[in-house]
Amino acid sequence: MHSQRYYTLSASCPDRVGIVARVSGFIAEQHGWILESSYHSDDANGGSRYFMRLEVKADSLPFHLAEFRERFLPIAEEMQMDWKISDSAVKKRVVIFVSQQEHCLYDLLARWQSKELDIEIPCVISNHDAFKSFVEWHGIPFHHVPVNPDDKEAAYAEVHRLYEEVRGDTMVLARYMQIIPPAMCAAYPGQIINIHHSFLPSFVGAKPYHQAYQRGVKLIGATCHYVTADLDQGPIIEQDVIRIDHSDSVADMVRYGKDIEKAVLARGLRYHLEDRVLVHGNKTVVFR
Amino acid sequence: MHSQRYYTLSASCPDRVGIVARVSGFIAEQHGWILESSYHSDDANGGSRYFMRLEVKADSLPFHLAEFRERFLPIAEEMQMDWKISDSAVKKRVVIFVSQQEHCLYDLLARWQSKELDIEIPCVISNHDAFKSFVEWHGIPFHHVPVNPDDKEAAYAEVHRLYEEVRGDTMVLARYMQIIPPAMCAAYPGQIINIHHSFLPSFVGAKPYHQAYQRGVKLIGATCHYVTADLDQGPIIEQDVIRIDHSDSVADMVRYGKDIEKAVLARGLRYHLEDRVLVHGNKTVVFR
Amino acid sequence: MHSQRYYTLSASCPDRVGIVARVSGFIAEQHGWILESSYHSDDANGGSRYFMRLEVKADSLPFHLAEFRERFLPIAEEMQMDWKISDSAVKKRVVIFVSQQEHCLYDLLARWQSKELDIEIPCVISNHDAFKSFVEWHGIPFHHVPVNPDDKEAAYAEVHRLYEEVRGDTMVLARYMQIIPPAMCAAYPGQIINIHHSFLPSFVGAKPYHQAYQRGVKLIGATCHYVTADLDQGPIIEQDVIRIDHSDSVADMVRYGKDIEKAVLARGLRYHLEDRVLVHGNKTVVFR
Amino acid sequence: MHSQRYYTLSASCPDRVGIVARVSGFIAEQHGWILESSYHSDDANGGSRYFMRLEVKADSLPFHLAEFRERFLPIAEEMQMDWKISDSAVKKRVVIFVSQQEHCLYDLLARWQSKELDIEIPCVISNHDAFKSFVEWHGIPFHHVPVNPDDKEAAYAEVHRLYEEVRGDTMVLARYMQIIPPAMCAAYPGQIINIHHSFLPSFVGAKPYHQAYQRGVKLIGATCHYVTADLDQGPIIEQDVIRIDHSDSVADMVRYGKDIEKAVLARGLRYHLEDRVLVHGNKTVVFR
Repeated sequence: MHSQRYYTLSASCPDRVGIVARVSGFIAEQHGWILESSYHSDDANGGSRYFMRLEVKADSLPFHLAEFRERFLPIAEEMQMDWKISDSAVKKRVVIFVSQQEHCLYDLLARWQSKELDIEIPCVISNHDAFKSFVEWHGIPFHHVPVNPDDKEAAYAEVHRLYEEVRGDTMVLARYMQIIPPAMCAAYPGQIINIHHSFLPSFVGAKPYHQAYQRGVKLIGATCHYVTADLDQGPIIEQDVIRIDHSDSVADMVRYGKDIEKAVLARGLRYHLEDRVLVHGNKTVVFR
Repeated sequence: MHSQRYYTLSASCPDRVGIVARVSGFIAEQHGWILESSYHSDDANGGSRYFMRLEVKADSLPFHLAEFRERFLPIAEEMQMDWKISDSAVKKRVVIFVSQQEHCLYDLLARWQSKELDIEIPCVISNHDAFKSFVEWHGIPFHHVPVNPDDKEAAYAEVHRLYEEVRGDTMVLARYMQIIPPAMCAAYPGQIINIHHSFLPSFVGAKPYHQAYQRGVKLIGATCHYVTADLDQGPIIEQDVIRIDHSDSVADMVRYGKDIEKAVLARGLRYHLEDRVLVHGNKTVVFR
Repeated sequence: MHSQRYYTLSASCPDRVGIVARVSGFIAEQHGWILESSYHSDDANGGSRYFMRLEVKADSLPFHLAEFRERFLPIAEEMQMDWKISDSAVKKRVVIFVSQQEHCLYDLLARWQSKELDIEIPCVISNHDAFKSFVEWHGIPFHHVPVNPDDKEAAYAEVHRLYEEVRGDTMVLARYMQIIPPAMCAAYPGQIINIHHSFLPSFVGAKPYHQAYQRGVKLIGATCHYVTADLDQGPIIEQDVIRIDHSDSVADMVRYGKDIEKAVLARGLRYHLEDRVLVHGNKTVVFR
Repeated sequence: MHSQRYYTLSASCPDRVGIVARVSGFIAEQHGWILESSYHSDDANGGSRYFMRLEVKADSLPFHLAEFRERFLPIAEEMQMDWKISDSAVKKRVVIFVSQQEHCLYDLLARWQSKELDIEIPCVISNHDAFKSFVEWHGIPFHHVPVNPDDKEAAYAEVHRLYEEVRGDTMVLARYMQIIPPAMCAAYPGQIINIHHSFLPSFVGAKPYHQAYQRGVKLIGATCHYVTADLDQGPIIEQDVIRIDHSDSVADMVRYGKDIEKAVLARGLRYHLEDRVLVHGNKTVVFR
């Protein structure tokens, strides 16, 4: 987290000799000042792949974002990179989805209003209207999109329309208690972030705290992950746990769990927004 | 945390044979149903002292709170107890103090509005007016009481008046950046709860994250404690830490720290409100 | 953990009014000094059940263990208790099972030789002979009992014989890489303690670190549990986790995991040996 | 942790444009395969400084260690680097110091015998002879060097002589309860590693668990740090904590503390041995 404006290059490519030299050489030729850089070589999953993330001070470069991308393109092609460059001065546009639980919503709005999360929230979408007035008090538009269990399509068409209309970058399911349809998962890969209230892969699906209570585990957790068509199976971004004991009822676990959920969601979302998360198959590289 | 109404007896007394038998015998004679009970014998600090906390189902007893107290009095006197009995149906009245940081305030109000914290908040008091409209949106009165560094007395007279007027039970300093004068500490022992942004006793006083940064620690923390006349020296209720590393600036530490501060304050406050905290000299017994 | 000799009563029974009064009244009549006491009421699993554990100073009672048991019997029968009373002066006899990994064995023997674990270790049993000389150096008999995959019965007959011969109280599977046959599980319920190298219920069975690596979890863990005929499904005593990230290979996870395994096993074993663990269906009450 | 042989370059220098390009360019020219690389820019302590650590596959380079150093020298001089290159095939020589507590010694020897710690232990030095036979059983020489409180110089002259004789790289004070004299600290900067049984800077000096008990903290910890002439003030390498509560005596805290001490020492030592720790003033950069 830097106070100056910077560009973030994140990329992955087949591993070979000279990647760091090629990329850092290009930046050095332009007199670019590297604020932070992280590299990772993954050779365990059948064929090596190389991951990197660099933050370069914007005013140390002799060009702006568009030209940076243009000049970097030949290197990226030579290296067969998946890549992107983002500008810290351009705020990401994050649409929050919520149902009837308040903790993640309050937490995200507190971080947003203090600029800890330096994002735009073009709107909040909910299948209930419980938080309409609270959201609007913050000056953020609120859309109540009820989901009819017998005809979910209409609702998701509306969600899709709203998200496109506000030119959203990321959807955050802040305890949004609806299953996202496969078509929407496919339309926005790596853009939909969910917080699941268990330490996955334990306790997939509904009522994970009840499942945890029945099994008698001694820690409960939460998992922030990208949403894919397979329920609760997407790439994991962040997880954490908290200790419980025999005296804790399901209601106590729900209460403890909320604290973990909001912390894990906030951390996972920040990693995502700062382009620290690179997806690799069904796993993630997270450069903290 | 029980859904039924219950009475909570918390007490300490010199240790001797038969305390549990005497207290539980009295409750059993009345056919009282014990929901939860905790005991602790402390024999390490020069003379043994016994601590206990019992939750008794209200409708299992043949009398109400006043008569419970009256009937228990002879036992308490015989045992030389410090004791109290509270009723889960009577909400505690908690006054929140805040300055210019939002995280603990948002967090407490989220817990209050969802009834996780089942309390009355008769007012919020601040030396700034930054959160006036946010607090009032929740239907809670907000009092701006500026503190003049050259004449703090007037401000604290007003704080005192407001607290008495609303018949407060507890003051929560939710990152209230003012030192409470000794007279007020003395007037409300065990009623003023602070969250300090370090893992005490390290980094007492101002700018603890700067101190932590200079020392190069690998974990930072927060401490919830009762306020006494000695700055940051009161009995500790709850603490926690989070891992940092060399790449974290002071600004990063402040950001991580907020998450620990609000979690530790919320846990400590709940223990206090449920009469789980018994002060013993400058330490606490916390029956979780 | 007390330096004086004490008796530990642990019991569970159907919940009703007056249990604590009855038990503590009995002890008070004998002028018994209660060092520590814990109670738990479980009303969530269909019918209330009450759990308790008390430590009573041995020399405060006018009788010894046998008479304590005899006098307590009528109360236990009246309350329909499952109960036992043990004497801190009688060391438990713990047989350790090990295969080819050293970390839990070294850890347990270090705790034993410093008397942190105040137990007898009448022998160590292994399906390999790797640690024969190390164990014998400590003055502990070592039995090499190879397990023939085609005829496990002979091996387990020998294990059974050895355990009976040394009058063992507890078997500790300290990374013993063999599945205990159902007949032995049935013969010693609540006596066989295993350390599983995952945070159960995730990653049951073989190679849990490989499973964790494939799923891309951000924390790995270990679970100490009682062994039952259902593999890795027995009542959980203790669990813990440690953070990993994308840069950690399976080999790194194995290394991190060892530290969690030995800590979790040591804690779970201590709870068991101090009669702090009461089994309730497939769950445990652990009075720490 | 890689299975192949590799060279580790660790270095720091004044920050400027092009450091990564220069270093990685040099390696790429030699067709060196980078297994792992970490970079950190510290601009907060008056003047920017750059830190780096690279692991390069040994057999991808056309030369051996001596020539690697020779060829790298001009770059290092141009950049004004503090630097070193080590070879994973050359085991570090670690001398362990111990007094009368066993837990860290057992733990380190378990890791050594399983090759998790892939080091030479040329000898163990102690001011007591409690562990002589245990150490010698492992085939490691044991030197009993009593420290006379009235004439410590003779003892430290002998320690110095032994350390030089075995050509030690690192001294590990594994709960060695003696204060290292300033002259020895000065002779081996960044080579002497201590484990202190508190979460520094809290509870410096003697009996930290007693101090923690008196203050009533809710977590206790341990700190692994380099030894300097200022007692318990050296650069911190690693720390961790564990939760305690009011029921824990000093003896319980000592017991819990041992588990944290050995884990923190093992992690800190591994970071040091793998050249992951770069000292910066009185702080450390630790590339995990």
